Amino acid sequence: MCLHDLGEFELIERLAAQGVVRPADVLCGIGDDCAVLDERNGEALLVTTDTMVEGVHFRLGDAAPEGVGFKLLAISLSDVAAMGGRGRDAVVAVSAPGDFDVACLQRVYDGLFACGERFGVNIVGGDTTQTKGPAVFSLTLIGRAPADNITYRSSAQPGDIVWVSGTLGDAAAGLRLTQSQGRPDDADRRFLLRRFYRPEPRVDLGPSVASSPQRGAMIDLSDGISSDLRHVADRSGVDIEVDLAALPMSDALRRFADQAGTDPLELALSGGEDYELAWTTRPEWSPDGVFGSAFCAVGRVKKGDGKLWGKSESGIKIIENKGFVHFR
Amino acid sequence: MCLHDLGEFELIERLAAQGVVRPADVLCGIGDDCAVLDERNGEALLVTTDTMVEGVHFRLGDAAPEGVGFKLLAISLSDVAAMGGRGRDAVVAVSAPGDFDVACLQRVYDGLFACGERFGVNIVGGDTTQTKGPAVFSLTLIGRAPADNITYRSSAQPGDIVWVSGTLGDAAAGLRLTQSQGRPDDADRRFLLRRFYRPEPRVDLGPSVASSPQRGAMIDLSDGISSDLRHVADRSGVDIEVDLAALPMSDALRRFADQAGTDPLELALSGGEDYELAWTTRPEWSPDGVFGSAFCAVGRVKKGDGKLWGKSESGIKIIENKGFVHFR
Repeated sequence: MCLHDLGEFELIERLAAQGVVRPADVLCGIGDDCAVLDERNGEALLVTTDTMVEGVHFRLGDAAPEGVGFKLLAISLSDVAAMGGRGRDAVVAVSAPGDFDVACLQRVYDGLFACGERFGVNIVGGDTTQTKGPAVFSLTLIGRAPADNITYRSSAQPGDIVWVSGTLGDAAAGLRLTQSQGRPDDADRRFLLRRFYRPEPRVDLGPSVASSPQRGAMIDLSDGISSDLRHVADRSGVDIEVDLAALPMSDALRRFADQAGTDPLELALSGGEDYELAWTTRPEWSPDGVFGSAFCAVGRVKKGDGKLWGKSESGIKIIENKGFVHFR
Repeated sequence: MCLHDLGEFELIERLAAQGVVRPADVLCGIGDDCAVLDERNGEALLVTTDTMVEGVHFRLGDAAPEGVGFKLLAISLSDVAAMGGRGRDAVVAVSAPGDFDVACLQRVYDGLFACGERFGVNIVGGDTTQTKGPAVFSLTLIGRAPADNITYRSSAQPGDIVWVSGTLGDAAAGLRLTQSQGRPDDADRRFLLRRFYRPEPRVDLGPSVASSPQRGAMIDLSDGISSDLRHVADRSGVDIEVDLAALPMSDALRRFADQAGTDPLELALSGGEDYELAWTTRPEWSPDGVFGSAFCAVGRVKKGDGKLWGKSESGIKIIENKGFVHFR
């Protein structure tokens, strides 16, 4: 059996059961946005690792190399924010072929350092190895959170409201735009490309939500909400009903979809790489005083067993999982 | 300019200067065996990352896949031990092609989990991505050490004695044996192959040495002592004189070199992948009560500026750096 027969999530499930030999020190292992370790003095360590592969996640011919480095750290910051914590220190492992251009690699690092400076993350080390294949960048980010604030995927309850930050689908539209020419003065194009190349991790919003006793579950939207909210439903043992008309979409996305002849809702549901946050709260939760970025209510948690429903004028039906799955 | 013009160490030097935006939280960034973070209550975090690339560091056709996983964690444990700490929790990033065999990947993880179980390390998470190139495994290990025990490369002083654990050159001989056939009942062959595939991180010896107020500098021997001790000399601003006749070599290595017509001293000096420890101590340091593995004195620290000298019956001369350098 090959990896593309099995798929990423089943592989992770297979491995999640093993590997923890000192369970008292692990609040959460594989299966959430971060591992949660070693609560001491009321503070826990959060650890997450992300990889970007040349030719899969980026093409240096298309992208400014700085964007690759920036995004590599930004997506890990999003994972830590989704647990309610703040990223603090990162290490980077680079595998690159011997004929890789040093100036280009320096620019990747410039983007990484710029992201670190902006969000207060130290880049404290790394490893550099030669490969005969495409360049591979892996970053591991260590963050911290008050132990009481850690917010899991598994904490949604029937009756919870579902919230989403920012707008969805922009990055998916931006990805499509990387493969086409366009006028550089096109503001929509610039906006959508930026949403793809420079995701904005919700580093203040996540901890702000997580500090409320009325919060339920939280996750970051990396694969598309049709896939990511399913993880919340599955791990929490509930169903989630999404009001499709309420999903936040930018005007730029609507105009892009109109011109491209695609359904913007499809991109918003399954496009992936939004790096926005989705979370649930008890119905009495008040959004007053929550800060970091705009957000809106998009649905409700119900009794169930892991299904995701889409409600629209034409009724309610199951949302198919078309999110991004590695190896499939 | 390409990476193979620049070399690994110059690249690391270029990057070491940047990246730290909250210096108060970083006791040591790039440039030692681990980054050292966040001393709290007298305890510091140690972070190190290592990568193994298919076709560069291993060939799955040659090696049992379990050995790849075992070694990936073992070499990071060696880094943490060389700072005087203990590895605690690890995350693994895997990039593999879609046609990669799942049973083989499971065996890589079995070796990783076996190493974790043996040395008390939790594998708490990871990331799995697809690549169009060779499989790449990156592991980040987080360890802890009492802040007073952290032992740097830069702390050697003139007058110090230089010590080395175990025997040197075995792994380099083992690497050569992976490329040749041999009788499976050949005990020397089995020993040397095992030294290459299953390095034994000195997880007790490192912390034991580090707890002494008379210890100087410490490093793990990954590239070969002719390269690694030079880092100690360079960072400490001293010269180091190695008594070549004192370098510990196994009988198996001597017999291998005899049959292969090579100089065992060359393998011991420059072979790499020993994952033994080298350290210095003040002359009054007593090895009594230090535990974890055998070790012996191999030289002395002198006033100087980063040179490494080899002393033998025929006199004293500079040891050339023939250790392994990526991209060269």
